[in-house]
Amino acid sequence: MNRTCPVDESEFRASAASLSAMTGVPIIVQKYGGTSVADTDRITRVADRIARTKRAGNNVVVAVSAMGKTTDQLIRQAEEISPHPPGREMDMLLTAGERISMALLAMAIQEEGLSARSFTGSQAGIITDDVHGKAKILDITPGRITDALAEGHVVIVAGFQGVSRTTKDVTTLGRGGTDTTAVALAAALGAKVCEIYTDVDGVYTADPRIVPTARKVEHISAEEMLELAAHGAGVLHTRSVEFGRNHGVDIHVRSSFSHHQGTWVHAHAEGNPMEEAIISGVAHDRSEGKLTVRGVPDKPGVAARVFQSLADANVNVDMIVQNVSATGTTDMTFTIPLTDSKVAREALEPLLTEVGAAGLEVDEKIGKVSLVGAGMKTNPGVAARMFTALSEAGVNIDMISTSTIRISVVVDEADVEIAVNAIHSEFGLDGAEVVSVEGA
Amino acid sequence: MNRTCPVDESEFRASAASLSAMTGVPIIVQKYGGTSVADTDRITRVADRIARTKRAGNNVVVAVSAMGKTTDQLIRQAEEISPHPPGREMDMLLTAGERISMALLAMAIQEEGLSARSFTGSQAGIITDDVHGKAKILDITPGRITDALAEGHVVIVAGFQGVSRTTKDVTTLGRGGTDTTAVALAAALGAKVCEIYTDVDGVYTADPRIVPTARKVEHISAEEMLELAAHGAGVLHTRSVEFGRNHGVDIHVRSSFSHHQGTWVHAHAEGNPMEEAIISGVAHDRSEGKLTVRGVPDKPGVAARVFQSLADANVNVDMIVQNVSATGTTDMTFTIPLTDSKVAREALEPLLTEVGAAGLEVDEKIGKVSLVGAGMKTNPGVAARMFTALSEAGVNIDMISTSTIRISVVVDEADVEIAVNAIHSEFGLDGAEVVSVEGA
Repeated sequence: MNRTCPVDESEFRASAASLSAMTGVPIIVQKYGGTSVADTDRITRVADRIARTKRAGNNVVVAVSAMGKTTDQLIRQAEEISPHPPGREMDMLLTAGERISMALLAMAIQEEGLSARSFTGSQAGIITDDVHGKAKILDITPGRITDALAEGHVVIVAGFQGVSRTTKDVTTLGRGGTDTTAVALAAALGAKVCEIYTDVDGVYTADPRIVPTARKVEHISAEEMLELAAHGAGVLHTRSVEFGRNHGVDIHVRSSFSHHQGTWVHAHAEGNPMEEAIISGVAHDRSEGKLTVRGVPDKPGVAARVFQSLADANVNVDMIVQNVSATGTTDMTFTIPLTDSKVAREALEPLLTEVGAAGLEVDEKIGKVSLVGAGMKTNPGVAARMFTALSEAGVNIDMISTSTIRISVVVDEADVEIAVNAIHSEFGLDGAEVVSVEGA
Repeated sequence: MNRTCPVDESEFRASAASLSAMTGVPIIVQKYGGTSVADTDRITRVADRIARTKRAGNNVVVAVSAMGKTTDQLIRQAEEISPHPPGREMDMLLTAGERISMALLAMAIQEEGLSARSFTGSQAGIITDDVHGKAKILDITPGRITDALAEGHVVIVAGFQGVSRTTKDVTTLGRGGTDTTAVALAAALGAKVCEIYTDVDGVYTADPRIVPTARKVEHISAEEMLELAAHGAGVLHTRSVEFGRNHGVDIHVRSSFSHHQGTWVHAHAEGNPMEEAIISGVAHDRSEGKLTVRGVPDKPGVAARVFQSLADANVNVDMIVQNVSATGTTDMTFTIPLTDSKVAREALEPLLTEVGAAGLEVDEKIGKVSLVGAGMKTNPGVAARMFTALSEAGVNIDMISTSTIRISVVVDEADVEIAVNAIHSEFGLDGAEVVSVEGA
């Protein structure tokens, strides 16, 4: 339920005076992930790209992740020592990764003939709460960043980390942390754009490994991007998109291996060159399983107890479907991450007899296919077209769930590819039909 | 010339109120080097030792180095990117090493059932000047350390690092840095003792690999230890010994692989159980080369120009010998680190014709043997006994240099072992003659 809204960073205030507004020199924030800085050669290539941006007349602020598998290696070392390492020390450990990559990147930029200064999250003024491992950004006090920019330096900031307002301890932001660092910096600095460099060249209408005719989306609203990201499109984390939407930051997702334009994710639809499509893309997700509680007595409070026990066990529930049958009992079906499957069963088993349920069924062989598009709001009949296309492709629908701009169906795992292709075709998303400027 | 005094940390003020004095619980500072924390198994063993010290009723503060070869690996990565990486970024990079080891060590201590908090140099209040790569400690403001101790935690501090008072950038202290961190913490906290854990079990009367009868010294004055360290005894860095002497900190050098007593280095000789020996040890050093400038006109200003040009090239000169001959010219001979040999020759070549010298000779096959003992001051004839012993062993003396508690000779590299053994025997240092409590 909280998958589209994993972190409420609404407390965040972009309070800093915008250096860009003061000097007239635009600020560009760039984010490079672990793959882009996996070794010293790649770091040198990234430095070249940063230098070009700087020489084009911009102030450049870079958020960088740890090199390649560094974080995994550090986690492995911690696990060798302790099965449950304390969060404070785990954060101290993991933040060493960005410290290494950012210092090496600053050196590589100096080799390009420019000057660079690296800053830890703490030095960069990234103030968080004190929840180790998944801290929220509360504020950014970027005095050292703006000073360094004013002195002509390229600024490198360690991604994924900050410092607790209350304890002054080092914190990490959790999954997708460096994207969030970049977007938050862009908001705090009044940046022109936040560029997220990754190993693909943008957001596609569907996963090109499944739909060969998928094409790159050039413009998309943050709202749609949020739905795609939350339902299986892996290129951006929901949290950074949400942060961008809430703080008016446009995100440009692009490849660190080419100079092509990628996908623009616009915080506000107004005045932006959105494509005039009803549908922006098809996402799929094979990471969930389906649980069904059979024969639940249809009386108040039962659903509450089921989902409270799952919440107590920290299980994220996604889709929920319930239908009352004529017999006075009901089947309650919901999807959860496969990784939570064991914990969920353990949490529910003792409850079954207590609430008088007939049994618990688990299906781990499912897939979720989602159609996302802001145009859905004003175009009736989208759901009907989608279901018809699935039916004609011989795909049986197991569960349905909708939002104002999304329709998701759960199908048999073996049918996922067929379903994605059928829907992609039905809504004219194939590259052959709707040619984009860049091509697919 | 500045080898015995590489860093003037006399500005340092141990200004903090002593928690130990306030609470009556003694504070012990322990230092563990890279070998002691080379892998997660060794970290677990170190944690066990720390836990014992804590459970024995002490407050424990630990200074820790980076794991094993981590620092070397980071330097190699930097060199792949830049031949001359900027000092600020190099320090940012290298300090990642201690961050990793200290967080893992804190986790290992928690596994022992105790609680631990790790702090970076900056968090621990280790304030330095802004000379990257060889910063001096100016002050320690250990508020977070004393707070954490008062809450019952074991405190781990990253060795080798601090934060610049002026720029607020991260700095490193250079070679021997973690020893210096430990001794400075001991001074600032009013610790009972500073224990330096290493891979040998103390200071020996000579290198046991050369003199099999060498025995462990149980007590030694900081003054003597300084001379031994500066002339080849590798177990402690001169800088930390000097810091301990200047700030009244007793250092206990001992093995991290046993529980035996090691060697106590006493800041003040008064009231301490020094051994009643005239001589405390024989050090040797094969890391230097000898340069001779032949036929230098014997007039004022020539020596100044020679040594100024070496100083400008950052060459550390150790011993200097000059004798005027009857012809009105002189030979000027001095020793320098072998690693500086090429730089020194390049610095001197242009000077030769300018000052009218006859030529430059280089001898890289030398060794220096030094006899150190505070008793020398009050016992005449030590030099004569030493030279006689060398003569009887057939060792030719090339250069001589003395301080009030040390006599050093330069000999042929091939004669070093013979010389060390001859002197060691002559002054009754062999284990067979002077039996210590622990045995050799």
